[in-house]
Amino acid sequence: MNFRSDNEAPINTTILNAIIKANQGFEESYGYDTYSDHFTAQCQQLFQCWCEVLPLVTGTAANSIGMTLACPPYGSILCHEQAHLNADECGAPEFFTGGAKLISMPGDHGKIDLDFLENYLSHTGAHGEHESLPSVISITQCTEAGTLYTLKELKQLNEIKQKYNLSLHMDGARFANAVVGLGCSAAEMTWQTGIDMLSFGATKNGAMMAEALIIFNPHLTKQIKRLRKRSGHLISKMRFVSSQLNAYVNNDLWLELAQHANLMAQKFFQATQSTITFVHPVEANEVFCQLPVKVIDKIREEGFKFHVWPGSNDIIRLVFSHATAEADVAKLTQSVLSQLN
Amino acid sequence: MNFRSDNEAPINTTILNAIIKANQGFEESYGYDTYSDHFTAQCQQLFQCWCEVLPLVTGTAANSIGMTLACPPYGSILCHEQAHLNADECGAPEFFTGGAKLISMPGDHGKIDLDFLENYLSHTGAHGEHESLPSVISITQCTEAGTLYTLKELKQLNEIKQKYNLSLHMDGARFANAVVGLGCSAAEMTWQTGIDMLSFGATKNGAMMAEALIIFNPHLTKQIKRLRKRSGHLISKMRFVSSQLNAYVNNDLWLELAQHANLMAQKFFQATQSTITFVHPVEANEVFCQLPVKVIDKIREEGFKFHVWPGSNDIIRLVFSHATAEADVAKLTQSVLSQLN
Amino acid sequence: MNFRSDNEAPINTTILNAIIKANQGFEESYGYDTYSDHFTAQCQQLFQCWCEVLPLVTGTAANSIGMTLACPPYGSILCHEQAHLNADECGAPEFFTGGAKLISMPGDHGKIDLDFLENYLSHTGAHGEHESLPSVISITQCTEAGTLYTLKELKQLNEIKQKYNLSLHMDGARFANAVVGLGCSAAEMTWQTGIDMLSFGATKNGAMMAEALIIFNPHLTKQIKRLRKRSGHLISKMRFVSSQLNAYVNNDLWLELAQHANLMAQKFFQATQSTITFVHPVEANEVFCQLPVKVIDKIREEGFKFHVWPGSNDIIRLVFSHATAEADVAKLTQSVLSQLN
Amino acid sequence: MNFRSDNEAPINTTILNAIIKANQGFEESYGYDTYSDHFTAQCQQLFQCWCEVLPLVTGTAANSIGMTLACPPYGSILCHEQAHLNADECGAPEFFTGGAKLISMPGDHGKIDLDFLENYLSHTGAHGEHESLPSVISITQCTEAGTLYTLKELKQLNEIKQKYNLSLHMDGARFANAVVGLGCSAAEMTWQTGIDMLSFGATKNGAMMAEALIIFNPHLTKQIKRLRKRSGHLISKMRFVSSQLNAYVNNDLWLELAQHANLMAQKFFQATQSTITFVHPVEANEVFCQLPVKVIDKIREEGFKFHVWPGSNDIIRLVFSHATAEADVAKLTQSVLSQLN
Repeated sequence: MNFRSDNEAPINTTILNAIIKANQGFEESYGYDTYSDHFTAQCQQLFQCWCEVLPLVTGTAANSIGMTLACPPYGSILCHEQAHLNADECGAPEFFTGGAKLISMPGDHGKIDLDFLENYLSHTGAHGEHESLPSVISITQCTEAGTLYTLKELKQLNEIKQKYNLSLHMDGARFANAVVGLGCSAAEMTWQTGIDMLSFGATKNGAMMAEALIIFNPHLTKQIKRLRKRSGHLISKMRFVSSQLNAYVNNDLWLELAQHANLMAQKFFQATQSTITFVHPVEANEVFCQLPVKVIDKIREEGFKFHVWPGSNDIIRLVFSHATAEADVAKLTQSVLSQLN
Repeated sequence: MNFRSDNEAPINTTILNAIIKANQGFEESYGYDTYSDHFTAQCQQLFQCWCEVLPLVTGTAANSIGMTLACPPYGSILCHEQAHLNADECGAPEFFTGGAKLISMPGDHGKIDLDFLENYLSHTGAHGEHESLPSVISITQCTEAGTLYTLKELKQLNEIKQKYNLSLHMDGARFANAVVGLGCSAAEMTWQTGIDMLSFGATKNGAMMAEALIIFNPHLTKQIKRLRKRSGHLISKMRFVSSQLNAYVNNDLWLELAQHANLMAQKFFQATQSTITFVHPVEANEVFCQLPVKVIDKIREEGFKFHVWPGSNDIIRLVFSHATAEADVAKLTQSVLSQLN
Repeated sequence: MNFRSDNEAPINTTILNAIIKANQGFEESYGYDTYSDHFTAQCQQLFQCWCEVLPLVTGTAANSIGMTLACPPYGSILCHEQAHLNADECGAPEFFTGGAKLISMPGDHGKIDLDFLENYLSHTGAHGEHESLPSVISITQCTEAGTLYTLKELKQLNEIKQKYNLSLHMDGARFANAVVGLGCSAAEMTWQTGIDMLSFGATKNGAMMAEALIIFNPHLTKQIKRLRKRSGHLISKMRFVSSQLNAYVNNDLWLELAQHANLMAQKFFQATQSTITFVHPVEANEVFCQLPVKVIDKIREEGFKFHVWPGSNDIIRLVFSHATAEADVAKLTQSVLSQLN
Repeated sequence: MNFRSDNEAPINTTILNAIIKANQGFEESYGYDTYSDHFTAQCQQLFQCWCEVLPLVTGTAANSIGMTLACPPYGSILCHEQAHLNADECGAPEFFTGGAKLISMPGDHGKIDLDFLENYLSHTGAHGEHESLPSVISITQCTEAGTLYTLKELKQLNEIKQKYNLSLHMDGARFANAVVGLGCSAAEMTWQTGIDMLSFGATKNGAMMAEALIIFNPHLTKQIKRLRKRSGHLISKMRFVSSQLNAYVNNDLWLELAQHANLMAQKFFQATQSTITFVHPVEANEVFCQLPVKVIDKIREEGFKFHVWPGSNDIIRLVFSHATAEADVAKLTQSVLSQLN
């Protein structure tokens, strides 16, 4: 009965079987295997466009290598104050870029306030070389609050990006949940609305350890293999990463897994929304809700695992994953409701 | 009639003469000259304590080398959002530290809101290695708003620093103006209230190019010469930096120059305070005041130089320096008042 | 018939089964799982001492994080010119350390010439802060030439290390092959001869992707988790790394696998030594030998895979792994001999 | 009687007077002064071409910022093993570039062995992303051995550069002495033989602290002002740097000063060459010669200052500067000869 994180969930069986199957004899190392090549082809079909693909094992690596492609050391990265790359990566983007500055932006429900962003950009630059050069906007989709930028908001971001000549990066640690949540295509949510590069996450949605940096903008692909190598992220037996990714996108498994996770979140939300307060809209597979501390203590005693949100004592985050059992959701729902009635 | 910046003022004659006098024959290079040694002795007397002293030519270098002493690459630096090292150094602290994160804090009149700071620190650390480790508080004295932390506020900062086991750095680009403004000793304003290191500025107050990083905390002095060298800041003919510093602190010249600058600011303030609005208290040598745009245009036409503050169109900054002529202050005062009456 | 690299070999079945077994339900993420804890205990038993252990997925990460622990940005790292961290990591140690300098040393058969090293150190330091500070000696064991430092040579290195107050790092990408090759204990080859930290490799010897940085010197363990995180090397589902490591050292599997690999190399060597020239002594699982170009072409045609060594056209490297079939070795031997006779 | 370093010499009077003259009233700061603009114009005339010019105060800064323009973090810099940027900058190039690798090359008399260089380059690249990408050749002219690459050698370097698609940097800490030594024009020795950028030194040849990075290749000028700022090298009262440079190149003062220095070296060489051994050809203002230790001790006692070369006990370096008195050279000559006869 674990609602703490989709990172704590097991590997999906299809993906695990792909790893096992890849373990046949010898295979070229360092990414020059057939699995890695195949994943690039899969991505180009999935996104219906040219793209360059760099398999990796962590989202922090994908985000940080992405930042080095678009942000010089004297540049700045604009992101939400709660963005993973700002709040949860222990300075990785600053490290990888050689000292870029992260500019954290406010905004409701984990989304950058677009007026604030535009206002910030319109007042930047007057001080010339004394200021870091705004270079990238990075958004998280789904956001750290479990919410989604709408396609309309993405288009507005794209306009701002173009007006100020920036790059646009999407941290898609929960990309599948976002695509399912918006009900659009992967292309619509990315390059068709100006996304230059995407951290494409699979680990949280059923892989063992598999992420990819997917670059849609051909101007940003220079020497990505050397950037991966010099940060220690070139896995020697890469076939065991790429085979995960192959299975993940094959037959729309990634969407199927995310559909389940999002559905579980909706079930909890639907059953409790008239009784409890939800801090953010429930748009994907994460739920933030307010409960009396007594209730929080009680459900924890009953064996449910979750995070009380830092900075609060009565807001909990529940994460629903590909492996969340519907029965567990029902039990949690019942438990919460019974405490409150 | 230049009120734009004390950086635009000329070299004080006594200091220039010291450079000329140092130009006698040959002298050991790279800081192993008698002038540099003498400056360390002067600082130890001035601050009435042991300290280590690193002559430099820019404040950005002093701040940034200071940060590397107290903040690891995975650490964070807490400072006011308008702090020079956050807003005006194009990412130098991030670069020198190898990727430390700057956390910008709000606060009225250029001073960190101490409640905000304490609240931030008390909520940090729950997320372990995912978060950058809070390592240094950096304050600017005088602040970027021309104001001063009182000794009481400095003591509060010291308490917070000790409670959270941080280092405390003071950016003293206008240190002399601050000492004069508070009417305290250099010791009282620094190590006696927990300052571990000080960027001691002389350039804005009459030197040609001379700053020093002064370290009071013996745990933070490791390999400072190598940190200076590897950033390209070891001046070969260092005698021409240190001789400036010698003259600057000799016979209290530094205080005399700052007294003049602060007095000029006060004269303008006293003469106009009943007529115009001052955005920040006038506590040292900088003045921020609001004027009708028409008036701003008019005085500019008359040849007065100053900055309209970025983000506004009717707030101007006036900086008074060691070289500001009292007659120019009188002319400016008269001009402003005559437009408004 | 792949003799190209042990990186191209498959996962050992026992290790793969450990991964599969770890895939039971939910488990704490980010290294706070029971598998990771268990591996630390295993290491302490294996090395018969206190040590701190950081599971990772690449050797480059282990080496580079190790370097940041022992070498400041203004420091230097002394290593063999062919050392992996000098020649094959695309600048990773420079990057992780924030700019440390790698000093490459000559030496026969991949081993640092100890007289050269001592001579270098005795002439360093005269130029003070202008020189990078010698901070770490890094050796590879087995070396890049497939050879081994003897225990006596390690003791000499330890004396040099102590005389010049350096740290000593061992890149053990093929650590198991070295322990087997020397016929000593893991303790004897590491902390008992002054090794401060070890990059403990498992991937080349049967794991999927699993390495560990093992630190014996308690002065060098500060904030290793943050160093891992900020470089993007904190795997969220860490159980799948640590469970590999658990299986790898359990029941001496690691030694058993290395014994096989070394034995295969010896078999080839024994059968051909009177006929062909070996460029380096055969002391572990790698063989470097000289063959007529015609023979090289012929055996390649027959389907044997191997590297012709860069810079030569008639020296080939053969790598024997845990998965090398004895029959393949026999075929290769026979083929080579038949061409030559 | 100082022959230790041209860094220990005083400021030339014309240059000092230019500083004094620049100290008239207020002037725009941060390089937006008329002196800096004028220096760019002077350089374009001096080099008879378009160029971009960045005034600085140290040669290490000029070299290191130059390296960041031409070498990515995953790149390598090829230079002589004794090159200042390899041996005497405490890792500054590694730091500024974010971790580029310095590849040190052998070669007689301080000059890169061009066959070694070409051979190195022809064998590099086979290992793809595992290797740092060769990006820049940096030469010192005059070299650290006081010698000069001939125009023919520079042309050969240019061919190698073009063949391997590299950039070519010249560390011209003693550029004036080199131009005088070769008897060619500044243009011939730089962009006309493929030099992309030049660290143009003035400090050793009479300035107080003034160097410039001069960029001939328009593809390498991106954001140089931000690179200067973020490394703390933007001097606020820049007029006092640029006015030095103005005076330095005005009326060929720079050549006049270097002519004197070179002539003094030649006088010593001519008078002693039949008696003592010179370790390197005397081609500019530095002399390396071998003397009996007894003689070295004796002349030191007599008050002559010089360096015994590190790694030897009987080789001394004598540096002749713009400020070396002919009488001192005569005394030194006489003293040496009288000891030996």
